[in-house]
Amino acid sequence: MARRILLALVGLLISLGSTAQERPNIVFMMADNLGYGDLGSYGGGEIRGMPTPRLDRLASEGLRFTQFLVEPGCTPTRAATMTGRYSIRSGLSLALVRGTPNTLADSEYTMAEMLKDVGYDTAYLGKWHLGMDPQSQPHNQGFDSYFGILNSTDEAQFAVGMKRAGYEPSKSERAYVWEGLAGRDDAARPVREYTLDERRTIDVELTDRAVQYIAAEAKGSEPFFLFIAWTRPHYPNLTSKEFEGKSTIGIYGDSVMELDHNSGRVLDAISDEGIEGDTIVVWMSDNGPWKTMVWPDGGSSGPFRGELGSAWEGSIRTAGMIKWPGKIEPGESNGMFSAMDFMPTLAKLVGGQMPTDRPIDGIDQSDWLLGRQDHSNRESLITFIGGDLVAVRWRHFRIYLQDVVQAGNGFTRMGGTQANRIQHNGYPKVYNIAQDPREEYDVGAPESWVAGQYMKVIQQYLATLKGHPNPPPANLTDF
Amino acid sequence: MARRILLALVGLLISLGSTAQERPNIVFMMADNLGYGDLGSYGGGEIRGMPTPRLDRLASEGLRFTQFLVEPGCTPTRAATMTGRYSIRSGLSLALVRGTPNTLADSEYTMAEMLKDVGYDTAYLGKWHLGMDPQSQPHNQGFDSYFGILNSTDEAQFAVGMKRAGYEPSKSERAYVWEGLAGRDDAARPVREYTLDERRTIDVELTDRAVQYIAAEAKGSEPFFLFIAWTRPHYPNLTSKEFEGKSTIGIYGDSVMELDHNSGRVLDAISDEGIEGDTIVVWMSDNGPWKTMVWPDGGSSGPFRGELGSAWEGSIRTAGMIKWPGKIEPGESNGMFSAMDFMPTLAKLVGGQMPTDRPIDGIDQSDWLLGRQDHSNRESLITFIGGDLVAVRWRHFRIYLQDVVQAGNGFTRMGGTQANRIQHNGYPKVYNIAQDPREEYDVGAPESWVAGQYMKVIQQYLATLKGHPNPPPANLTDF
Repeated sequence: MARRILLALVGLLISLGSTAQERPNIVFMMADNLGYGDLGSYGGGEIRGMPTPRLDRLASEGLRFTQFLVEPGCTPTRAATMTGRYSIRSGLSLALVRGTPNTLADSEYTMAEMLKDVGYDTAYLGKWHLGMDPQSQPHNQGFDSYFGILNSTDEAQFAVGMKRAGYEPSKSERAYVWEGLAGRDDAARPVREYTLDERRTIDVELTDRAVQYIAAEAKGSEPFFLFIAWTRPHYPNLTSKEFEGKSTIGIYGDSVMELDHNSGRVLDAISDEGIEGDTIVVWMSDNGPWKTMVWPDGGSSGPFRGELGSAWEGSIRTAGMIKWPGKIEPGESNGMFSAMDFMPTLAKLVGGQMPTDRPIDGIDQSDWLLGRQDHSNRESLITFIGGDLVAVRWRHFRIYLQDVVQAGNGFTRMGGTQANRIQHNGYPKVYNIAQDPREEYDVGAPESWVAGQYMKVIQQYLATLKGHPNPPPANLTDF
Repeated sequence: MARRILLALVGLLISLGSTAQERPNIVFMMADNLGYGDLGSYGGGEIRGMPTPRLDRLASEGLRFTQFLVEPGCTPTRAATMTGRYSIRSGLSLALVRGTPNTLADSEYTMAEMLKDVGYDTAYLGKWHLGMDPQSQPHNQGFDSYFGILNSTDEAQFAVGMKRAGYEPSKSERAYVWEGLAGRDDAARPVREYTLDERRTIDVELTDRAVQYIAAEAKGSEPFFLFIAWTRPHYPNLTSKEFEGKSTIGIYGDSVMELDHNSGRVLDAISDEGIEGDTIVVWMSDNGPWKTMVWPDGGSSGPFRGELGSAWEGSIRTAGMIKWPGKIEPGESNGMFSAMDFMPTLAKLVGGQMPTDRPIDGIDQSDWLLGRQDHSNRESLITFIGGDLVAVRWRHFRIYLQDVVQAGNGFTRMGGTQANRIQHNGYPKVYNIAQDPREEYDVGAPESWVAGQYMKVIQQYLATLKGHPNPPPANLTDF
């Protein structure tokens, strides 16, 4: 708490003392399970029977990342984005399902807290998926207000399923739409049950609320940070009436088109209020597509292999873009950008502070985004699944320390949980992701020099664990 | 011959009688085994460690097809492009290797003959691969002049291989660079042996000759048709010195970058001569990548499945674009365009005539290209392998009448050679290529209504065979 007060004072001093410090509004939109190959600007869109004109326009007006890297699932990427750290550091490296003990701790310092501490008004709309404990909820993690669903969209099926089973669930076993206000509510309050009908319209309600929020905040004196976590195109992709049958590929395409439309309404609200030039827009997906288990209600990972839940590139490379008119040059870049990089980058841009009492894995990329240097500051990324360090990216090489073989939708890990143990079994698998986007040809032997490089990445990570051990992962196979 | 004279007279009358008829120059470039996912504008380029700035610029200045469809190999697509007909009609539906009996017949009427007949100067530079018989060679098929290799680039390996085996081949067994002049040479004359050293520089020589040709022709009174059949990025991708190590992915990437550079030099020559506005530029690849057998010297089929030689989408969808400043609106389109469509489309644009005494499978797409209608005239395509009708495309559905299972680089056909025979075994496999670019989910049952549609396509094709039977295919498994 002392740290928080100190940071708040620092933020206040900065915002008072430095008139040169810009504090643009930030509208941060996150899609759910949209794959690399889904949007038009990423080689999908019309080709896939689902045009995405609004997001394609955003891509052309902003900087589109072609090497935007995330974690292998909803909860992990959301935890990483919100904290600027690998999700394993907060015990959130697997998707949370009902009954999972792990939850976002009060001690985590979130992107919202960072922005709040420099005077931003903050709001969260949509899916949270970082735990149901009151301490974990958005309005207790730096957001002034919260409206949305606490877990995943597939919980919309609960009511129907329970009815079919003749089961009378307790209130805590049902799925709800929730809302919460910082300072008023300890735990969020259920608004209404989250049913399949609600699933059809929830994003329309998120959009309406976003438009209202932007209109109200545009007249205020403080900048605002609005985080919209869309529920689309996560299974089950039932849409509102207007979008039924809009695409040629069924409900997944219809849902992507509705996602495009709703994102466009938010962008329109920003320009309608005349604050386009003062507003940073981030738009990203949280991970690769969910496909095998939910087909045909799933997307495409484009040229890459695999889907969500695995460590293949198709799981951890997805769509991501940022727009700031007049500041960030429009175009596309193949520089490596991690979802974790947003927090330290935004902190730098608006005069916020990152905590210094814990390891931070996100990298400040502001010099690159603002054109002060021509390259990304990132050249590596580690991928964890549950408690396991599974894969390392170093430049255009992908190194697998453990085999993660997809079996149906899930994955079966082969080998133990310690990276070093696997090392001794021989060379790990190495793929050149530029040469071989589908990761079919192991180049571990001809490119054995890469070992020295990825081991540095691992050693740097392992060094951060001294004094900062990870909490136990909610990994059901690691009991 | 009587028909040819008649057509020539018709052409002459048109070119004299109608001053309104435009006759733009045509520069037609064809890459060899470049995959859908290789160029920057198709989601490759820098992402793949091999930037392609010149071809990306061409894509932005012209119309880029995202559904450009070809046949499953070098010879088939070249035959189809050159005749406006499925290659099976000329017996060229398999790649020609040494000893193959099939060859382009004198009776075929080529794109070059069509343009020659309306007064174009014509020249062919590069790989031919439509047969070594004198009757088949470019300078006997409508081109005023020819310089290049008659077969495939992998023959550059002949000399070394023969030497290792201590074998003294006859002249006819060696590989050569050839040249021929219409009216002077019956058979083309060997210029020099085509060796691995020649393979490094042949495309530079093609470029130099193309630049010279364009400079000379720009001063002439007749329009010109220059066909450049690059040898890149076909295995083996040895490059000229300047491009060694240019990419981050080895010789394949180096070769694609050299291809980009050489194509750029041709485009520069067109603008340097001030004829950019009077010149149609076509740039296409002949088929999907060659991968498994030649790895790492092969490309990517992007989001699609399979490679050259198969009937999967990755074999038959590749890069294709057309530029005509002031006439064809720049942009991209997902309309279906077949390599066979170029000949009738160009015929319409320049007042040429397509033969009426034989089935023509290419479709005149001029109204679409010139913006007189907003859609392609094509909604189906058949894919043959050797003598077999293997697959049908109808709109966004892909229908497989026979299983073609990739085994190593080649394919093993399961089932007989008659489409109807397979029909009776049950529903064929059906994939929705928009929903499922990687063709993993057979939707033959839920989309069984599609059967009535693709059967129409097959019946229309079968009807054309009455009176015009196909010659025997050079299909080694069909003896």
